[in-house]
Amino acid sequence: MNKTIDLNCDMGEAFGNYRMPDDELLMNYITSANIACGFHAGDPGVMQETVKMAIQKGIAIGAHPGLPDLQGFGRREIKISPGEAYQMTLYQIGALHAFVKAAGGRLNHVKLHGALYNMAAKDLLLSNAVVQAVSDFDSSLLLYALSGSKMIEAAHTAGIQTASEVFADRTYQDDGSLTPRSANNAMISSDEQAIEQVLMMVNKQEVISTNGKKVNLHADTVCLHGDGPHAVTFAKMISEKLKNEGITLKSPAK
Amino acid sequence: MNKTIDLNCDMGEAFGNYRMPDDELLMNYITSANIACGFHAGDPGVMQETVKMAIQKGIAIGAHPGLPDLQGFGRREIKISPGEAYQMTLYQIGALHAFVKAAGGRLNHVKLHGALYNMAAKDLLLSNAVVQAVSDFDSSLLLYALSGSKMIEAAHTAGIQTASEVFADRTYQDDGSLTPRSANNAMISSDEQAIEQVLMMVNKQEVISTNGKKVNLHADTVCLHGDGPHAVTFAKMISEKLKNEGITLKSPAK
Amino acid sequence: MNKTIDLNCDMGEAFGNYRMPDDELLMNYITSANIACGFHAGDPGVMQETVKMAIQKGIAIGAHPGLPDLQGFGRREIKISPGEAYQMTLYQIGALHAFVKAAGGRLNHVKLHGALYNMAAKDLLLSNAVVQAVSDFDSSLLLYALSGSKMIEAAHTAGIQTASEVFADRTYQDDGSLTPRSANNAMISSDEQAIEQVLMMVNKQEVISTNGKKVNLHADTVCLHGDGPHAVTFAKMISEKLKNEGITLKSPAK
Amino acid sequence: MNKTIDLNCDMGEAFGNYRMPDDELLMNYITSANIACGFHAGDPGVMQETVKMAIQKGIAIGAHPGLPDLQGFGRREIKISPGEAYQMTLYQIGALHAFVKAAGGRLNHVKLHGALYNMAAKDLLLSNAVVQAVSDFDSSLLLYALSGSKMIEAAHTAGIQTASEVFADRTYQDDGSLTPRSANNAMISSDEQAIEQVLMMVNKQEVISTNGKKVNLHADTVCLHGDGPHAVTFAKMISEKLKNEGITLKSPAK
Repeated sequence: MNKTIDLNCDMGEAFGNYRMPDDELLMNYITSANIACGFHAGDPGVMQETVKMAIQKGIAIGAHPGLPDLQGFGRREIKISPGEAYQMTLYQIGALHAFVKAAGGRLNHVKLHGALYNMAAKDLLLSNAVVQAVSDFDSSLLLYALSGSKMIEAAHTAGIQTASEVFADRTYQDDGSLTPRSANNAMISSDEQAIEQVLMMVNKQEVISTNGKKVNLHADTVCLHGDGPHAVTFAKMISEKLKNEGITLKSPAK
Repeated sequence: MNKTIDLNCDMGEAFGNYRMPDDELLMNYITSANIACGFHAGDPGVMQETVKMAIQKGIAIGAHPGLPDLQGFGRREIKISPGEAYQMTLYQIGALHAFVKAAGGRLNHVKLHGALYNMAAKDLLLSNAVVQAVSDFDSSLLLYALSGSKMIEAAHTAGIQTASEVFADRTYQDDGSLTPRSANNAMISSDEQAIEQVLMMVNKQEVISTNGKKVNLHADTVCLHGDGPHAVTFAKMISEKLKNEGITLKSPAK
Repeated sequence: MNKTIDLNCDMGEAFGNYRMPDDELLMNYITSANIACGFHAGDPGVMQETVKMAIQKGIAIGAHPGLPDLQGFGRREIKISPGEAYQMTLYQIGALHAFVKAAGGRLNHVKLHGALYNMAAKDLLLSNAVVQAVSDFDSSLLLYALSGSKMIEAAHTAGIQTASEVFADRTYQDDGSLTPRSANNAMISSDEQAIEQVLMMVNKQEVISTNGKKVNLHADTVCLHGDGPHAVTFAKMISEKLKNEGITLKSPAK
Repeated sequence: MNKTIDLNCDMGEAFGNYRMPDDELLMNYITSANIACGFHAGDPGVMQETVKMAIQKGIAIGAHPGLPDLQGFGRREIKISPGEAYQMTLYQIGALHAFVKAAGGRLNHVKLHGALYNMAAKDLLLSNAVVQAVSDFDSSLLLYALSGSKMIEAAHTAGIQTASEVFADRTYQDDGSLTPRSANNAMISSDEQAIEQVLMMVNKQEVISTNGKKVNLHADTVCLHGDGPHAVTFAKMISEKLKNEGITLKSPAK
């Protein structure tokens, strides 16, 4: 059987005068772009430009809603109610959808950003609210979410199709959750090790935890980081390695 | 022949903790609600709530995009390029559309707010950009714009259907333009006079200028102001008066 | 001995077009105004106006820093580091101080707002950071903070003078903490009861908890709420009642 | 006589996650830092950090107030009243002053940013308002402003000390004004030519206009641009060249 995997990356996280010059290069190696919607990053100009690039590159386009915290880049937890999570998700999906529609493209998926992603992953009420927003807007959209999270659970309950996300450069714990960033061994700094982990996750749907235990997970899409000087190099490297291993890179089919 | 007119009002201009308690009452007397989209006023929670009310009342829903200036309530001119006008209009239409779609309603029209409304009325390049955003998103949307303005011209060129807007409580000059607010005689403070003016505009498609001249204009929709202690009383009064005169109140048909 | 108490109220929480008409009236009955600094409410225009009013009324002026969350009115917790708490407190004190200095007044105190107030009350690291900001800016400023909180503790350690704050319309638990707003019996709705509680707190430095227990606390200043239709009436009532009981209303002396 | 000149540069224009890595290097070559105050760029964290660096480098610190337009980087004109100009200038001076005071430094000057700089340069009412804000806060502050502008005029009338600013990489017109950026010959791209122009301005207090005419101007401080890959190289080059020519680099003395 021919294995496939999606490579996704957060895109359009420039703002105003603050540019992200690597977005276009990165799009050569990924198959899904999660485009910021103006709350944690991005602005209407950046959104238009990024959507246009993604359409030209032929990659899948997702809305990437975040908390309304530009200064904190959407990475600081804000205690919001499920109602507020519903509202801010719906607002941002709508805004991005407009650029996609106007440019003749098609919105493929939704992936939450930063603290909102992490908060919803652990909180079923927030997850249900976000999934409801996706479903109310367009129930054929896919939801990209942390493998094994409450978001995946909420989507399945609501009949929304999911892509389970795994990380190349993050380590996992025995229960399949990510090692918190505060821990020393949270990150995988070696490119080779990161690629090794991805190959195992794609080929065997499992990962070796920090305790050396084999842990099952579901890997539909791999998150690559778009920032840092190394981002393009690594994206190119992993993309080539996966293809060399006979794995097809493509976004999840609706 | 049975005359018809639309009464429109800017709605959803609350923000966070700052409420606008009259919106629901006003909706009893108007036929179109222009709902703020979060740039000059409104937020995702207010938008959800206001859209829901408008659907319940059965009135036409429009997006009401403004300049990104919450402190200035979108009333301070910001020098933006046509590209920026396109982007901010498209973004805001998309955001509001999401709430309308999610609530099972239909987006009917777009009406610009405040300084953006006035800037575009006089500037064909801005008008073209705004009309392009409307057209790229959904060319069946109506555009509500100042009677005789560049916006109407741009929409006609692009094949976008329009509703020409007139004002109950503003005076007009010989060339059909509004008397600038800075002038002493810009506003009509008497309710009777305001209603008289509207009746003439609806029945005869003309208005008496501040110089006493008869001026032709096109009146598809009358703008009522939603703020001030007097707003509900006046909306009720003009709505009843128009109906008593045999004029049908309804939003422009697509 | 002649008893004294301070009545403080959050002021200047208008924003742009959204007005708070009661501020001026309320200033007739209070002795300290905590003026919002533009993060959770207020803007440079509102700050200028409110500072001017407070100087005219001769009441003590405090900076009222909040979380950067205008939509949430500073009431949603945002997970910030002590460093960020230091920075946002210092920024806001500086901004308000400029208006006070320019108007020929004197900045008397600092009181945190909303979620920042509550977060710091329970978290010594946040409290230390906030107190450091106050101390680095002007160590002669007073800090108004919840009676018995970490803020009071941090201020004492740093040698910053404090005013312990109590609430007229909130109930207390056996340990002297406020009953959480989520509880049914958190609020005191009867004006008479609220005034009764304040009189006991001022005269005896104690309060009756929701369990009927006598609890010691320290009452230097009473927080009155500035919003709601009832705010002015209640401020007048409590101010008169306290004076009738021979209690002197004045802001804490530096 | 020993000639002196000040080299100033806009600093602290990072925001949140968006960094400006060259600030520290640039501070080796300049004598005055104009530090953004959070309206067009900068945030409380960036302000603290930048102030600290400037104090360590021993260079003069100025507040750099801009229009409230982060997305437009303060470069889009916003039609504000003189009252609003006063308020936003005072607010931002106060905020920056707090960081300077807390870090044990001294605020030396104020220089407006972007569109606010340009608007005030041509508009005496705006200039008067800005100068009033400076004067009300601390009349010993210097004002850095475009040589020959309304700002210089307003400051002189109010008795505020000024530093007249000239530009290394901008061409001048016969009347001493800058060639508008929209013109083809607005910018000087050759480093040698830019340095030649600065030398002439410093040594002779004159410049050659685009028409080849000698034009008098006043040169107290030269504005260097802090962005672009070339910024540090050019700052180093002009700093060395000026010193080699026997010109002393120092900030204007109060």
